[in-house]
Amino acid sequence: MPYEHEKLTEEKVFKDPVHRYIHVRDRVIWDVIGTREFQRLRRIRQLGTTYLVFHGAEHSRFQHSLGVYEIVRRIIDSGFGGRPEWNEDERLVALCAALLHDLGHGPFSHAFEKVFDLDHEKFTQAILLGDTEVNAVLSRVSPEFPQRVADVVGKTYKDKLVISLISSQIDADRMDYLQRDAYYTGVQYGHFDMERILRVMRPAEEQVVIKSSGMHAVEDYIMSRYQMYWQVYFHPVSRSAEVILIKILHRAKALYKDGYRFQQEPVPFSSFFDKTITLEDYISLDEGVLFTYFQLWMKEKDPILSDLCRRFINRKLFQYAEFDPAKEYRKIGQLDALFKEAGIDPEYYLVTDSSSDLPYDFYRPGEENERVPIYLQLPNGELSELSRSSDIVDAISGKRRTDHKIYFPEDILEAGQKDNPLYKEILQLVRG
Amino acid sequence: MPYEHEKLTEEKVFKDPVHRYIHVRDRVIWDVIGTREFQRLRRIRQLGTTYLVFHGAEHSRFQHSLGVYEIVRRIIDSGFGGRPEWNEDERLVALCAALLHDLGHGPFSHAFEKVFDLDHEKFTQAILLGDTEVNAVLSRVSPEFPQRVADVVGKTYKDKLVISLISSQIDADRMDYLQRDAYYTGVQYGHFDMERILRVMRPAEEQVVIKSSGMHAVEDYIMSRYQMYWQVYFHPVSRSAEVILIKILHRAKALYKDGYRFQQEPVPFSSFFDKTITLEDYISLDEGVLFTYFQLWMKEKDPILSDLCRRFINRKLFQYAEFDPAKEYRKIGQLDALFKEAGIDPEYYLVTDSSSDLPYDFYRPGEENERVPIYLQLPNGELSELSRSSDIVDAISGKRRTDHKIYFPEDILEAGQKDNPLYKEILQLVRG
Amino acid sequence: MPYEHEKLTEEKVFKDPVHRYIHVRDRVIWDVIGTREFQRLRRIRQLGTTYLVFHGAEHSRFQHSLGVYEIVRRIIDSGFGGRPEWNEDERLVALCAALLHDLGHGPFSHAFEKVFDLDHEKFTQAILLGDTEVNAVLSRVSPEFPQRVADVVGKTYKDKLVISLISSQIDADRMDYLQRDAYYTGVQYGHFDMERILRVMRPAEEQVVIKSSGMHAVEDYIMSRYQMYWQVYFHPVSRSAEVILIKILHRAKALYKDGYRFQQEPVPFSSFFDKTITLEDYISLDEGVLFTYFQLWMKEKDPILSDLCRRFINRKLFQYAEFDPAKEYRKIGQLDALFKEAGIDPEYYLVTDSSSDLPYDFYRPGEENERVPIYLQLPNGELSELSRSSDIVDAISGKRRTDHKIYFPEDILEAGQKDNPLYKEILQLVRG
Amino acid sequence: MPYEHEKLTEEKVFKDPVHRYIHVRDRVIWDVIGTREFQRLRRIRQLGTTYLVFHGAEHSRFQHSLGVYEIVRRIIDSGFGGRPEWNEDERLVALCAALLHDLGHGPFSHAFEKVFDLDHEKFTQAILLGDTEVNAVLSRVSPEFPQRVADVVGKTYKDKLVISLISSQIDADRMDYLQRDAYYTGVQYGHFDMERILRVMRPAEEQVVIKSSGMHAVEDYIMSRYQMYWQVYFHPVSRSAEVILIKILHRAKALYKDGYRFQQEPVPFSSFFDKTITLEDYISLDEGVLFTYFQLWMKEKDPILSDLCRRFINRKLFQYAEFDPAKEYRKIGQLDALFKEAGIDPEYYLVTDSSSDLPYDFYRPGEENERVPIYLQLPNGELSELSRSSDIVDAISGKRRTDHKIYFPEDILEAGQKDNPLYKEILQLVRG
Repeated sequence: MPYEHEKLTEEKVFKDPVHRYIHVRDRVIWDVIGTREFQRLRRIRQLGTTYLVFHGAEHSRFQHSLGVYEIVRRIIDSGFGGRPEWNEDERLVALCAALLHDLGHGPFSHAFEKVFDLDHEKFTQAILLGDTEVNAVLSRVSPEFPQRVADVVGKTYKDKLVISLISSQIDADRMDYLQRDAYYTGVQYGHFDMERILRVMRPAEEQVVIKSSGMHAVEDYIMSRYQMYWQVYFHPVSRSAEVILIKILHRAKALYKDGYRFQQEPVPFSSFFDKTITLEDYISLDEGVLFTYFQLWMKEKDPILSDLCRRFINRKLFQYAEFDPAKEYRKIGQLDALFKEAGIDPEYYLVTDSSSDLPYDFYRPGEENERVPIYLQLPNGELSELSRSSDIVDAISGKRRTDHKIYFPEDILEAGQKDNPLYKEILQLVRG
Repeated sequence: MPYEHEKLTEEKVFKDPVHRYIHVRDRVIWDVIGTREFQRLRRIRQLGTTYLVFHGAEHSRFQHSLGVYEIVRRIIDSGFGGRPEWNEDERLVALCAALLHDLGHGPFSHAFEKVFDLDHEKFTQAILLGDTEVNAVLSRVSPEFPQRVADVVGKTYKDKLVISLISSQIDADRMDYLQRDAYYTGVQYGHFDMERILRVMRPAEEQVVIKSSGMHAVEDYIMSRYQMYWQVYFHPVSRSAEVILIKILHRAKALYKDGYRFQQEPVPFSSFFDKTITLEDYISLDEGVLFTYFQLWMKEKDPILSDLCRRFINRKLFQYAEFDPAKEYRKIGQLDALFKEAGIDPEYYLVTDSSSDLPYDFYRPGEENERVPIYLQLPNGELSELSRSSDIVDAISGKRRTDHKIYFPEDILEAGQKDNPLYKEILQLVRG
Repeated sequence: MPYEHEKLTEEKVFKDPVHRYIHVRDRVIWDVIGTREFQRLRRIRQLGTTYLVFHGAEHSRFQHSLGVYEIVRRIIDSGFGGRPEWNEDERLVALCAALLHDLGHGPFSHAFEKVFDLDHEKFTQAILLGDTEVNAVLSRVSPEFPQRVADVVGKTYKDKLVISLISSQIDADRMDYLQRDAYYTGVQYGHFDMERILRVMRPAEEQVVIKSSGMHAVEDYIMSRYQMYWQVYFHPVSRSAEVILIKILHRAKALYKDGYRFQQEPVPFSSFFDKTITLEDYISLDEGVLFTYFQLWMKEKDPILSDLCRRFINRKLFQYAEFDPAKEYRKIGQLDALFKEAGIDPEYYLVTDSSSDLPYDFYRPGEENERVPIYLQLPNGELSELSRSSDIVDAISGKRRTDHKIYFPEDILEAGQKDNPLYKEILQLVRG
Repeated sequence: MPYEHEKLTEEKVFKDPVHRYIHVRDRVIWDVIGTREFQRLRRIRQLGTTYLVFHGAEHSRFQHSLGVYEIVRRIIDSGFGGRPEWNEDERLVALCAALLHDLGHGPFSHAFEKVFDLDHEKFTQAILLGDTEVNAVLSRVSPEFPQRVADVVGKTYKDKLVISLISSQIDADRMDYLQRDAYYTGVQYGHFDMERILRVMRPAEEQVVIKSSGMHAVEDYIMSRYQMYWQVYFHPVSRSAEVILIKILHRAKALYKDGYRFQQEPVPFSSFFDKTITLEDYISLDEGVLFTYFQLWMKEKDPILSDLCRRFINRKLFQYAEFDPAKEYRKIGQLDALFKEAGIDPEYYLVTDSSSDLPYDFYRPGEENERVPIYLQLPNGELSELSRSSDIVDAISGKRRTDHKIYFPEDILEAGQKDNPLYKEILQLVRG
């Protein structure tokens, strides 16, 4: 039997708190899970710094990846099978892409990407196509199979239906992370009736569509997503930790560039600082390495680096204040000057950060990031864009919400305000 | 107002998946949570290697510690308050001991304690009494307060009732971890009606007792515990990972003692190898450091160390087989000889491991580990030992169950058995 | 001790699937629960005909009433106590009103009110003030106490804050029924973080307000309500059963008025038909009586009455079709004529029904049903109407959604269409 | 296509709180659900009087029957299909028997069976084989099909494997009611990992067996059952209500036999009193009829009948006291005499009641009620009786637990004890 169709003699199951059980029958899937690169995802948290606010959110990208795989498996095996719009030859590539779509994520990806100008999706593709264990497994299916998986992840795959399973406004990725992140943070949001959504998903020419009788379940999913964004993903305390993380990496890089003598050579970081990153460098970096070095850096002589690392490791984060750039456009300049005058480096201690989300959008041709909308399939077979049928979705469709905050070391300012009137002035200005 | 009685201006809450919310009103508790030593618990998993079987079990000792605190808080604030048997002066020491009872746990404590002959409880006490942030906070209550907390943890405190809240056959520690570990692994076991148990807990002279009307809830708790032990805590695959971890530490220590030249000096481990551990050494060691070094050691020249590290990091664990020491007492000797003959070092590749649990026991004076039994408080006020009232508990009371397993590298043996008849013989013998 | 302040020697608890436990300490509450009129609520389903669609929805108004009580108790006992805006003298009246707000509901109230022009709120007040067991208990508190409770239910009570606990756009009534109905139907909607909402509720001069930090939990509650209305409460199949129920009562009344000789005298209904209902008549009527008579009527000679009863009892409901009164204003007239021509009485077999909901509204002075909006309490103490802060609530605020349906006996028409071309024509016309 | 194999054009689903969704594809199943006799189960509570203690337990036998069907469907469709031990020709008979196994239950069956010497299983068979709608549907499959279904319910069917799905120590019936009753009462017990049990169920020659790797899930199921029996099913307050119900029926029958003139002729009961019950009489009786008559009887002149009915309807139940027949064999006689002397009829007001349960038993040949034990299927294919492998099950195996109680009208005795020393004496004696 070709490797592609090999089944395990006995189905393997993973106990999963979100989906109860994750089922594996295909040998390819089992072998991919066993690779070094996939096991590495156990050492990278799904939600980065969020665990510093929601202490339950310590779950890894490993389990999320299994979850996305399981959802796609259920869609295909119990819903799509036998329908003419679905090509069963795409099954394995869809399952592998689901399982591997986050393979290139590094520790605290968002911060890393920002500081070192990286793109985790490029790394996912590089791992899939490079000299790796996962590439070896996928290549056993066929020489071009790794490329097919990489194309789905990169959204250039010919069969758009397969892409939409993993990457669209209602895909297996989102359905897993909303539920999983809700479960681990313990918040009430994030719940929706996925079993119902799976039952009403239908394969169509270019994408997955939803039987119109399932509209309310989809509405509920969109509202869950909206709530999770503002309650969990954009939580200001978690952003505070991320702001500090970014500044740590900035500072370490700046020191390195300046020829600063670290007490222990930052070996795993050098290629990042130098922009000479190899695939092996990238794969070797995980959260454990970061925490190990941050703890070493807490003892460095550079006061900014050691202070920032202490803040991150011991959770002494920056305080935040609301900020309206449209009205208060001069505030940052004023604060910047005051910080300098007070001897606190604003580059590291005065940070603005914005979060922004578009809960759902219909197709707006020509605009950047054209989004494929969600389509309902009417009883007569016609497709109708979701917001035309749903009052609630229509109401929020295309409405971008943005939130701006200033982050600053309130502890330093409060402790010193008695002796230093500048500190007091800063506090008053920043608090508005 | 004395620091001991200071309240936060606004109650702080932590969202917790198991207890919904964890409530903090006391400034002392808030300050303790903010210390470096307590925050460190975020970097140590509650269940060690279990996440390699139950991928959801990535939760840390940090959240478990908060959970135990919350349970003790609920017991005291809603149940004990006002009862003559309860001394409200013990409230804060009980809360602090609940929060801090696991403070001295290191990464994968069980393995570390075994290899380096350590005792995490001693370290808990050392951190409480040493030159630490947590000691500084506790000392603000009163100079002898840290010692009081340490005494509760060490079970030498004068008020046995306080000890029993945190350490007995039905304590806040067990009630939190059973539920929490069930939640994160996703298993169905581990659930019991804690709210009911809290409602029937009564303070008595030497310990917490249970109103007899709550007997069935306690039975259910004991059964949950039994199931969690055999389904989760003693899972053979998780024990396989722990066996490998122990062997890694053994090997690294042996190499170090032999003067082996590591490619990168194992600085954080040296004092463990040399038995010159300082408190700072101990506190600095967390799972991140371990994973960082294990990944470095994967590239070491010593084939045993690098193989074991690769196995641990990439989850290529040992296989296991049942083993009955009473009947098969010669088997290990035979296998040992065969391994040597086959050129596989049995010291690292042939491991026996036993798990053993006593689900509940009444008091057996004179026996080692005398256990304080659970007492029911009858309507007339008299106490009656649980197993005298409960048929089910009586049935399992004092019945120790033990399970023995042999762990071995089946992958090596299977791969080589064609060429090496010894490998085949080993496989046949070990599989019985 | 005055009866008003009497406490039970031991707290009583009811096990409740939604709130875990319902706690009773006040003797007044305990005594009220034991009255005949309150126990009667066990014989009236909370959701009328909904159990014919969602088979789990067999729960009674008894448990909902306990649930509303428990929520108000939690709000007062753990949140309001001690705040200057809250007058502790209102505690007992608030608890009693919460417990008793639905006391006057009869079986399938909505249908009964429509056919016999009744008002369940009037009956609640009549039971509270009449010669009843519940009145006897309340009068022991003070002679005017029953009137105070009745005033809260009737929304004429002087302290508007008390009214708003039980009757406002975010009250204990709604919070209980959304969660309870979701639990019993098994739908995923209806969940929101009530514990969080209770924590952010604050007493204000005229009503309960919400600390602004709890805005997202309130958004989620409003969305839950929206989904429950359209997914559960307005489910077309449940409305079909209600349509039939209304027609049964219409028919029985018409026959009675015409002097029809029932095989068994419809004693419990006569005073309803005659508009001479006494309180005792009203209280004696419950779902059991209805089902008993409907089964008797299945055997009556009148073909319409027996057919409708058979439909209701054996769940042979009417089919439904969409209907747009704005565009299809002539359709009903045409169908009416066709039904008559086909010998099917349109008065009983051709029914239009509309459902309409306003998910949330701010205050629109002068409009009928002026609604008190939900106010957020900003950190500076000011109040701000919810839709000014919440994009989502703003988007749906004041947007009434209405749905129109035609109900008809598709089974009769389908069975007869071969022989009767009129039947076929009706089917084509009604299905549009 | 033969009716037996007809599928619905679109799968129908019922939303179910316990199993999420119940799936129906077979037309036969759909048609059976629509029959009058099956719909009647909506008017009979699953747990009889239990709702008077656990107010959530208002669920009907209708939903339990659907649940048992769904479990058997999952076992067959996802587990048994394709295995040689399973004969796919038995599928439909198994599904129908699962759905219909409780069809003959009347209102408060246990009490009715006791008073009128009936057997609900006989009525199930009578309905299946009589002139009923359900018989008409089943007969369309084949003329002998109703008899096959009746044989499975009566446990005389030739294929013992089919019987064991619905009636054994681990069957779909128990698995549904434990979970369902736990859900509706809200207790924590009753939960076990059914999904795991379904995965390890295997068809064997004479019965369903369990793969040995699933042993712990089965242990948990047996413990759940044990807890549900003692916490819910045998709850003394629910038994008190049942005791009163039995006495109502006794009294009404006695009055009827004595020629007592009821104010309204008890038509639906006459054939029960006369032992001339027809199938139609039986089917017509539901809880609504009972409640209707009990309310009428509250106004009867006979003081015993009216008092007992008032107690049942308004939940003024008897109090209970522990009673040990082995030690206190004279107590009942003494109380009987005292009751008579005090003018309280002991036949109706002094009741003893015993509950007894055997949590699990292995096969004991020759004993009455021989039970088929649960077998584990070992990896080598051999079967091993459960208690030989499970310490916990072994500990409780065959251990019958019995509980005896006396029920009496404490309210009457307490109210009258000041004036009547006999009342005081009774109270002292009964309370021990």
